[in-house]
Amino acid sequence: MAIDKSQNHQKRQQRLKEKVDERIAAATEERGIVQVITGNGKGKTTAGFGTVMRAVGHGKSAAVVQFIKGGWDCGERNLLEKFDVPFVVMATGFTWETQNRAEDIKAAEQAWQGAKAFLSDPKVDIVLLDELTYMLSYDYLNVDDVINCIANRPKHQFVVVTGRAAHRKLTELADTVSEVKNIKHAFDAGIKAQQGFDY
Amino acid sequence: MAIDKSQNHQKRQQRLKEKVDERIAAATEERGIVQVITGNGKGKTTAGFGTVMRAVGHGKSAAVVQFIKGGWDCGERNLLEKFDVPFVVMATGFTWETQNRAEDIKAAEQAWQGAKAFLSDPKVDIVLLDELTYMLSYDYLNVDDVINCIANRPKHQFVVVTGRAAHRKLTELADTVSEVKNIKHAFDAGIKAQQGFDY
Repeated sequence: MAIDKSQNHQKRQQRLKEKVDERIAAATEERGIVQVITGNGKGKTTAGFGTVMRAVGHGKSAAVVQFIKGGWDCGERNLLEKFDVPFVVMATGFTWETQNRAEDIKAAEQAWQGAKAFLSDPKVDIVLLDELTYMLSYDYLNVDDVINCIANRPKHQFVVVTGRAAHRKLTELADTVSEVKNIKHAFDAGIKAQQGFDY
Repeated sequence: MAIDKSQNHQKRQQRLKEKVDERIAAATEERGIVQVITGNGKGKTTAGFGTVMRAVGHGKSAAVVQFIKGGWDCGERNLLEKFDVPFVVMATGFTWETQNRAEDIKAAEQAWQGAKAFLSDPKVDIVLLDELTYMLSYDYLNVDDVINCIANRPKHQFVVVTGRAAHRKLTELADTVSEVKNIKHAFDAGIKAQQGFDY
């Protein structure tokens, strides 16, 4: 019985390995990709920063632009600045704190200038555009300008975009799109957001 | 016209702010939570490591156990070891590479001993159990033992579990569950997985 189970397992794993190997052999194109991480669940920004951290851990050069989260003390930033990862942070913080459309647009445009510089610099291997999607939802930035800059970046450069409700043009441009769905959230059960973990 | 748009925006943002503030006031409980990041999309492991990085950036102490990915050179590990984050890595690598159930189980149990030590250590603020879900799907670890150890951890400790097809008992125990759905993936379009970005 134990041997049977073990043999079946081995056969199943062998088939799985063949399938995986076939897929790996078929994937031959090498270039930077655009990854969009969207949806209403927890983990989009952390996935973006995790991707940057992985790249930095492999000696790649990274750059980060944070739209929206400017007002918060940021653990990711504390850590990545030790590795000389440049940060551009939008000046106004959460838009529901500022409540001033004109100022938000100005701040978004300033942050976007920083993003544009990274997206045209071949020395930058990966650019994280954290929470960029909201700038398009709120119509703070021109979607075609954003799409063109990302599409015309250096060929080897990776771009990661996070935020809810990604614009259709952005997901069409992207090579990889993940949707993070909220199944349940501690906050809804009355548990406080905690510094160092939730932000 | 421009003024109207700006005023409407301000009213809408004011209502949004009130709603957010109400929810923040209602969330009063402070304790470590269990977060499960599951689903078939890209970004689960990077979200887990991003959460660890955020915590480390805030001076918290973290520990990582990697089930399954032991065979790969790991950018996250390179970086976090500079911050004295202890790593336990399962010895056998991907299970479809080993194809030996008995050895996999032994390796899983060894890694789990490391996890148990972290889950009973009050000096550890956050524990990442990367790809743990597969150990339960494959029946390599006892689900009740896993659940009990996580449930009885120090009260302030955060736990993040990643991997596809999380066991029902795990999502029931969790405070926060996110499902990362694959909308599209570069690999399916023939683009090669690239070191430093995909692993």
